[in-house]
Amino acid sequence: MGKKLTKREEDYSKWYNELVVKADLAENSGVRGMMVIKPYGYAIWEKMQAELDRMFKETGHENAYFPLLIPKSYFSKEASHVDGFAKECAVVTHYRLKNDEDGKGIVVDENAKLEEELIIRPTSETIIWDSYRKWIQSYRDLPLLINQWANVLRWEMRTRLFLRTAEFLWQEGHTAHATESEAIEEAQKMQGVYADFAEKFMAMPVIRGTKTESERFAGALDTYTIEAMMQDGKALQAGTSHFLGQNFAKAFDVKYTTKEGKQEYVWATSWGVSTRLMGALVMSHSDDDGLVLPPKLAPIQLVVVPIYKSAEQLEMIDKRVEELIKPLRAIGISVKYDNRTTYKPGWKFAEYELKGVPLRIAMGPRDLDNGTVELARRDTKEKQIISQDDITEKVTQLLEEIQNSLFDKALSFRDDLITSVDSFEQFKEVLESKGGFVSAHWDGSSETEEKIKTLTKATIRCIPLDASEEPGLCVLTGNPSLRRVIFAKAY
Amino acid sequence: MGKKLTKREEDYSKWYNELVVKADLAENSGVRGMMVIKPYGYAIWEKMQAELDRMFKETGHENAYFPLLIPKSYFSKEASHVDGFAKECAVVTHYRLKNDEDGKGIVVDENAKLEEELIIRPTSETIIWDSYRKWIQSYRDLPLLINQWANVLRWEMRTRLFLRTAEFLWQEGHTAHATESEAIEEAQKMQGVYADFAEKFMAMPVIRGTKTESERFAGALDTYTIEAMMQDGKALQAGTSHFLGQNFAKAFDVKYTTKEGKQEYVWATSWGVSTRLMGALVMSHSDDDGLVLPPKLAPIQLVVVPIYKSAEQLEMIDKRVEELIKPLRAIGISVKYDNRTTYKPGWKFAEYELKGVPLRIAMGPRDLDNGTVELARRDTKEKQIISQDDITEKVTQLLEEIQNSLFDKALSFRDDLITSVDSFEQFKEVLESKGGFVSAHWDGSSETEEKIKTLTKATIRCIPLDASEEPGLCVLTGNPSLRRVIFAKAY
Repeated sequence: MGKKLTKREEDYSKWYNELVVKADLAENSGVRGMMVIKPYGYAIWEKMQAELDRMFKETGHENAYFPLLIPKSYFSKEASHVDGFAKECAVVTHYRLKNDEDGKGIVVDENAKLEEELIIRPTSETIIWDSYRKWIQSYRDLPLLINQWANVLRWEMRTRLFLRTAEFLWQEGHTAHATESEAIEEAQKMQGVYADFAEKFMAMPVIRGTKTESERFAGALDTYTIEAMMQDGKALQAGTSHFLGQNFAKAFDVKYTTKEGKQEYVWATSWGVSTRLMGALVMSHSDDDGLVLPPKLAPIQLVVVPIYKSAEQLEMIDKRVEELIKPLRAIGISVKYDNRTTYKPGWKFAEYELKGVPLRIAMGPRDLDNGTVELARRDTKEKQIISQDDITEKVTQLLEEIQNSLFDKALSFRDDLITSVDSFEQFKEVLESKGGFVSAHWDGSSETEEKIKTLTKATIRCIPLDASEEPGLCVLTGNPSLRRVIFAKAY
Repeated sequence: MGKKLTKREEDYSKWYNELVVKADLAENSGVRGMMVIKPYGYAIWEKMQAELDRMFKETGHENAYFPLLIPKSYFSKEASHVDGFAKECAVVTHYRLKNDEDGKGIVVDENAKLEEELIIRPTSETIIWDSYRKWIQSYRDLPLLINQWANVLRWEMRTRLFLRTAEFLWQEGHTAHATESEAIEEAQKMQGVYADFAEKFMAMPVIRGTKTESERFAGALDTYTIEAMMQDGKALQAGTSHFLGQNFAKAFDVKYTTKEGKQEYVWATSWGVSTRLMGALVMSHSDDDGLVLPPKLAPIQLVVVPIYKSAEQLEMIDKRVEELIKPLRAIGISVKYDNRTTYKPGWKFAEYELKGVPLRIAMGPRDLDNGTVELARRDTKEKQIISQDDITEKVTQLLEEIQNSLFDKALSFRDDLITSVDSFEQFKEVLESKGGFVSAHWDGSSETEEKIKTLTKATIRCIPLDASEEPGLCVLTGNPSLRRVIFAKAY
């Protein structure tokens, strides 16, 4: 198959890149920094979307769609926002091509220059708040709870499939509220939704916390984050939810009439997760043989492979398998029966291992006689012979067990990689030798944060929500600190 | 409410524009020709997407995602394709903004000019076929059946909400096949899927046919279309499916090895429907009081409005309604109970009429005593008092009845607007006085087609699939014709 992967120990980064391509998740396109999400990868993303969309709707949000292109002048209205994104904006300047008069082929028609340049959205706060001004008049119009599924574009210089691409797919929630406390509550609630999704569906434990000022979203007063730990000891920011205060309401003049008849600016949040989660999913559970997918997000949960020598044997197996998978499909389990005659069973086993299918059943002529099948788990590679009568029960039970076991394994791995340190020597040593999250005291200043970053490449991933008050001394400066924060090298 | 609509008879076009905005489907944004799809409109689009996506998957297609931006050189590879789209392309020329040194604010950074301009996809054949070259090696890789849900952009000069917008949402299927006949079969099959969707879900009858050469998609050998009739007697092209021959395979050098070991170019199709269908849906069924939605695509299928004088009455009604709607929700009917105290029942009645909710139940104190409710249909405005015991049965039955009745009504309306004519005088007269589809003989030449268009503004909508052979004489030139084709003025 030519599908042998580089081992994680040898070169984790190479392993990741190879795996994404060989498992047919995504590949680079001919356009700089932009990926093609292949059908198998997109099927996983669709499962993520379906669950998240359900969770958003259950918490009262509705979907809408806003324009791809944003006039430059809108974009400039919120000062810190434009500062944060200006350097990575794709700019549309013309709206027509033409045949060159000098025979150079198709060229840009200089007569079709836009009066005002348009920016491809890197995020949609500005275009959305321009609409909200028209939608919000009175307290009756609040809260406004809207989500958008969309593509966005940030011109990144160094890109990696899923983890950092110029164009990516995401959802962005944008809400408007009558009061500050309601907006903060919303931002926190959505952080909770993201954490639930990461842990219950992706089987990926996360630390919930807030960002420091220098790591906040451009235009936010507070950024709530969920931070995950990858197998190479590097952190990955998996989702963020922002309390935006009245910044965008003021920039776009969005006021509402209170019950008492006063005019007030509204309060805002925004929150998003993206196809970056695909990268996080791959790096959380997979191994040197390929993907390992949690059953709740696996496009194929069970694959069935026939083992046969003759066409007659295959025919008999086909018949039996069809009977056996019917009840599985009826209860919503996604089953693939791969009886292609153009590939051998060994090839198929390796292929579905590479693709992370959680369970595999093999059935040969002897199984037909004995009323058995061989059932194999992708995560542990354990195999067992079971009676055909028990398939539905066993498969259901194992899918649940695998989902839980992946989470438990990732949790214990992650917990082992949280190290408390009390000196800068120890800080550096842990980062170098062990990696992972480093829990340390910090004096709260951006200067110290920046210095530590320069010296170690570690950033403050978050101030954990559950951090207890514990006075101490900053690992770098020795200045007083009220609680530990979480540092790590990060994706 | 200030929601009184212009009547269709007075000004159909104005009625449409007002309705789309007042029913909260969509509105214009601050960006030329680009719309905002509001939550209620987007909820209808989501229902359309869900059904279409299911139908695509049932016919063996998988979803994937390709880049938004296409290098100009790719775009130019298929000659007729670039001719067809070059005049409406948005062009990205720069990838960075900066603070102007002369204090003019945020400006395009001229140092960040792209070496090769990028085009925002107006359709994705070129970027997709560039990938297919890598994906297709042997007959084992065929057929390749892929669909993409995406936004596209065509710089239209005159735009109208949903019907013609610069950016729109759509799906585009792109398939590759080993043989010509298989590709033609696929293109026809997807035309069938579109027709089924239009008729069974949108309750909108369509004529299936093929386009004439001059109306074909840029790069297609044959375009299969479904054509619908709006209430003002104008036709609307609702979906197209293209047989692309080997044009894109040759332009992008996509060959496969046959079973016999030969190298052959593959055969292609592409097919798409867009948010334009939202416009078609609005114009097919709605009336002077607002939207009329077919139950299968209505985000709210039944609204329940309490009629009360006191808080105690409301409380009793609340309790009873919750009991009554539980079984409806359990069988998948989407019910909204609107017990807001900030709006009066009359306001709510008008609001849900405007929004096209198929069924309305009103419950007052007398209904509580009598065990009854008032059930009203949106389409016919018929009301009846029914027993609370019969709600589930009646609602289920009426939703089905409304779905069928909307289709029947639209079908008989459409059939009355198909007129056979045999002279050019009659042709012009029917177009002027009655409108609709005109079935007439045509000599098959593009010159004649063009002349008729210039003289009457009518185009050939399609050569109907079910047209019987019937020799005759072209209405314009008197030259011989083998069968009638369908003309109309169109959106």
